[in-house]
Order: sequence, then structure tokens, then C-alpha cells
Amino acid sequence: MPPSEFDLIARYFARPTPQAVLGPGDDCALLAPSPGMALAITTDMLVAGVHFLPDTDPQQLGWKTLAVNLSDLAAMGAKPRWVLLAGSLPEANEAWIAAFADGLFACAKRYGVDLVGGDTTRGPLNLCLTALGEVPTGRALRRDGAQVGDDLWVSGQPGLAALGLAHLQGKTQLPAMLAGRCIAALQQPVPRVELGLALQSKALAHAAIDVSDGLLGDLGHILERSGLAAEVFANQLPSLPPEADPALARQCQLSGGDDYELVFTAAAKNRLELIELAAQIDLPLWRFGRMIAGTAGALTLLDENGQPLPINRTGFDHFD
Amino acid sequence: MPPSEFDLIARYFARPTPQAVLGPGDDCALLAPSPGMALAITTDMLVAGVHFLPDTDPQQLGWKTLAVNLSDLAAMGAKPRWVLLAGSLPEANEAWIAAFADGLFACAKRYGVDLVGGDTTRGPLNLCLTALGEVPTGRALRRDGAQVGDDLWVSGQPGLAALGLAHLQGKTQLPAMLAGRCIAALQQPVPRVELGLALQSKALAHAAIDVSDGLLGDLGHILERSGLAAEVFANQLPSLPPEADPALARQCQLSGGDDYELVFTAAAKNRLELIELAAQIDLPLWRFGRMIAGTAGALTLLDENGQPLPINRTGFDHFD
Repeated sequence: MPPSEFDLIARYFARPTPQAVLGPGDDCALLAPSPGMALAITTDMLVAGVHFLPDTDPQQLGWKTLAVNLSDLAAMGAKPRWVLLAGSLPEANEAWIAAFADGLFACAKRYGVDLVGGDTTRGPLNLCLTALGEVPTGRALRRDGAQVGDDLWVSGQPGLAALGLAHLQGKTQLPAMLAGRCIAALQQPVPRVELGLALQSKALAHAAIDVSDGLLGDLGHILERSGLAAEVFANQLPSLPPEADPALARQCQLSGGDDYELVFTAAAKNRLELIELAAQIDLPLWRFGRMIAGTAGALTLLDENGQPLPINRTGFDHFD
Repeated sequence: MPPSEFDLIARYFARPTPQAVLGPGDDCALLAPSPGMALAITTDMLVAGVHFLPDTDPQQLGWKTLAVNLSDLAAMGAKPRWVLLAGSLPEANEAWIAAFADGLFACAKRYGVDLVGGDTTRGPLNLCLTALGEVPTGRALRRDGAQVGDDLWVSGQPGLAALGLAHLQGKTQLPAMLAGRCIAALQQPVPRVELGLALQSKALAHAAIDVSDGLLGDLGHILERSGLAAEVFANQLPSLPPEADPALARQCQLSGGDDYELVFTAAAKNRLELIELAAQIDLPLWRFGRMIAGTAGALTLLDENGQPLPINRTGFDHFD
């Protein structure tokens, strides 16, 4: 028999899996977990028209599909090892599939993970990725570990992805250089794997989360799970790109999703070491607030005089 | 804030996870693999209109979504332990979600697995489940382990699910009792977890696969992966329900999918023990052929006189 379209798709995703006991092609993949390690596992579903535009460049989509899952592993301080991909496609478009696989495997290679299994079927475009990583037992960066007095930190430039989206949607007009940077943040996000691993292995953080739905909204998850409140110092938030509309840029920074930066809490005694870490991994780390006792989840934004500012911390809710 | 529809959905799937270090609600779930065990992992995507009718009873769909993944674990001889569910839904229909969760957790309870994580989003109805199990290192039942001279065995009554579908589609008219049995096989399949575990722990099988796409088509995967050929003895195939049209029943048996019986190969010296096992677990086991040397994947169907019969071994290909 000639290969069916189904076989053809599988072929694009069959690559060597040196980290697996048994890779794609059987009823299950077989993995050998490392002794003394906990397994961190996460699954994310990306739907055309909801999480990405149907005409999104397939290579960028392949990268992003994997990157957003590796970001969840990074937020636990886990080392990425294995992924599985299930997808439904409206048609077996070979060029699209080849480009998507290119992007996915570029990200897999960059972070040293093997695609060990999957499923392909016909249907409205939908991609579901499951990622597995390992973290020493008892050392994972959980959302519920924040302590009173902890500093709040965030990496990189949260908000650029949302600015890029606003630009693409014609809601703002960014200068070309900044537009390129923001669109790259949106379409090819960099999961903060090195940062998460460093925070975990050096025991520098008490709690962490990745910013997928908005800085304040995701910070809220740490507050709720840790049963604490927080103060955010507006004048210590990451600097905004000066070329962008300041109000929009601030709104994107506080409520925009899709950047996949890490927000984490750390004891004040670790400040110097975190500043050194930022230099080592060439990634800005911003100390922008602190954890306080109070109503679980309560978040106060303070101006430079310590006066409360109005805030909108609603994250991105797929059903809103 | 009142709970959003998104929170509401999550609530239906948040149940105790005694087998996890950390269950739903963080960036990842955390699991503690058992020492000396390999991890078996599989992912399956079920799309409305492709794998099930959009008006399928949600409770039955919940059961089946999990059962088909547990069947993949069974086919490896792995003990099911943890699952993750990602789903996109066109609307947050609370009654539908509650019924779906009921069915899913009924199956989870029956087989002792914890739902440890997931993702919910809006989109065309699509369910993606990832299941993890454990199997002693080096003991998994792989597709590539069949040996020349092995007997071919299949469990249960493959073909009933396809007969049930034909009845529902008006392509045949089954008597009520048989129709009920066939529709149950289609809508509430029983993953052969006990059988898979027994074959593995007693070292009774060399290779195994679950019948999701058709008996002969799935057997073909064992042949190809093992680099062997096989003879199937038509008169030793499972008996057909006498109330059904014989030609249709045979076609459903050989090419119908969705039964989730196990096909496996075993040394001839294990025949007696396999017959005893069938009695112990109250599940018929049919010895219906044997592995031979020959072109990898070549399959011959022989009548009672050893004469070749024409066959159609095409399984269910989602892109055909």
C-alpha cells in the first residue's frame, strides 16, 4: 500500500528520541524517569481562532506550541525532557505540516527535549501538547510557597507580546524596530527555562508562575494559593518602551498575556544573588513589590508616594 | 469576583489526587514515579464529528475518552496511574460538563487513576487526554516483540462496536438484546487493563496492541514492527453473534475499530496458562493464528482447508 496521508504526517514528527526508552510508533512511549526526581507534567491546548489566527505562520506556530508548555516547566524549576503532540487538522497540507514541524523541532532542539509520542486526526485546527520535565524531589517552584516579606520579581519585558498583538490588530501604530521586537515576543516567545532552573537549583525563590494571562492576574494566582496579599510599586515595574503610547504600554504590561516571563517571590536576602544571576543569564530581573499578610489575593498598586492607584488585574479568561 | 465560567469548568474536574505529589492548580502537576518502573505515556485526541457524534451522551463520552487511553496502557502491560485532560468546548454548558465529568471519573475510579491536570478553552468540541502508567523496566508489551511460531490471540468479541455503529447508522437492524450489547461496546468500551497486567506480570506475551482501528489492521502493526508475517485461521476467529448478518458481522470483526480488545502473540507453551487466565479474569481469549517468517507485514487468511481467502485489512484511517 502507498503511505496514507496519516502515515505521511507521522513521518514529519518521527525523529530520533535518545531520551526515551521507546519513542513514537507503539501504543505508548516508554520513559525512564531519573531516580530522586519528581516528574513535572503540563498540557495545553491551542485552538485556531482563539489562541492564534488560522493564517499564523506554521513555523512560528510550531515553535510557540512547544514554547508555551516549556514555560510551564520553567515556572516549576523543572528541566524539560519529553513532549507529546496531539493535533487535529482540517486537511493534510504537507507544506504546512513540514513548516510546523520545523518550528516545533527548532524549539525542541534548543531546549533538549524529545517528541516521544502523539496523535493526528482530522478536524478543526487544534494543537494539544503535553510536556514532561524533571525536578529534584521537594524542590519544585510551586505557586503556594510565597512568604510574608518576600520580594516580588519579574523577568524580561512583560507586555511586549500584547503590544505586538495591538499593533497587528491596528489598535496602535508602533515604529518598525519596536514592532518587530513586539511581534517576535508574540510569535516566538522564549520560555525562561534557564531562569527557572537557576532559581530552583540555587534555592533562590519561594514561589513562581509564568505570565501567560497577564502580570497582575498571574501574580494573583500566587497570592491566592499562598494565602497572602501583595503590594506592587508602580515606579519599580519594568521600564516601558519609550516609543509606545505610555497608557497602552502600561496596560499591556499589567494585563497582557502571552509573554511567558516568570513572576517569582524571593527572600530579601537573595537580592544580590538575583542581580548577579540576571547578569549571568543576560535577562533583566525587576523587583517590583513585596508579599504582605492580608486578605488572600488582595493586591495593591502603590505610586511613588505610597498612595494606592486604581488597577485592573483581570487576566485573559477564555470564556469571558 | 464571582467565579468565571472558566473557574466553574475547572471545579468539575478538581477532585482529590492521592496518587500525585501536586494535582491541578499549579503550572504543572508533580508526580513521584515508582523506583524500578518505566513510565508508559500516551495521548489521544477525540474530535466531535470525527470520533463521536456531537450529540453523544456526555456521560458515555467522558467514560470513553478515558477508556481509550487506558486501553493503550493496557496494551503495554502498564498499570494506569495518572491522566491529564485538555478540552475545547463551544460553550460552557454546565449540565454537559457535569455529565461528562461524571463519566470520566466513573472510569477513573474503576481503574484507580487520578486526574492531575488539564486545560480548558473555547473552541470546536475537542477532547485530548494524556494517560500515564507504570510497568517494570524491560517488561512492557511492545509491538516489536513477536517471534516466529508465536500463537496469535485476541480477547473478547472484536467487532461488536462496529456492529453497534452500523445499527445506529441504520445500515443493519439488530435484535434489541444484541443491539444493546453492541451499542454498549461502542459507547462504553472496557479497557483490558487486567488482561494487559496479567500478560505482563506473568510474562505470557511477546507482543501486544489494542484494537482501535480493526483487528487485521492493528495486527498488521505488530507484523511490521516485528518484521514478520502471520497466518490467520478463519475458523478459529471469535464466534460471531448468530443474530447478525454473517457477512457484516465478519467484516466488523476483521476491520471494525473501537472495541479496544487486545491482540497479542505468545509462545505455544503458554496455551494452557492463557486458557486458565481467561477463566480467572472472565474474558474469552481466542487463539486465531500464528506468526511465521516472511515479508514483514504479510498476512494470510486461511480457510479450514488451509486455502487462502481474500481479505480486506484496511483499518480506520482518519485521512482516508
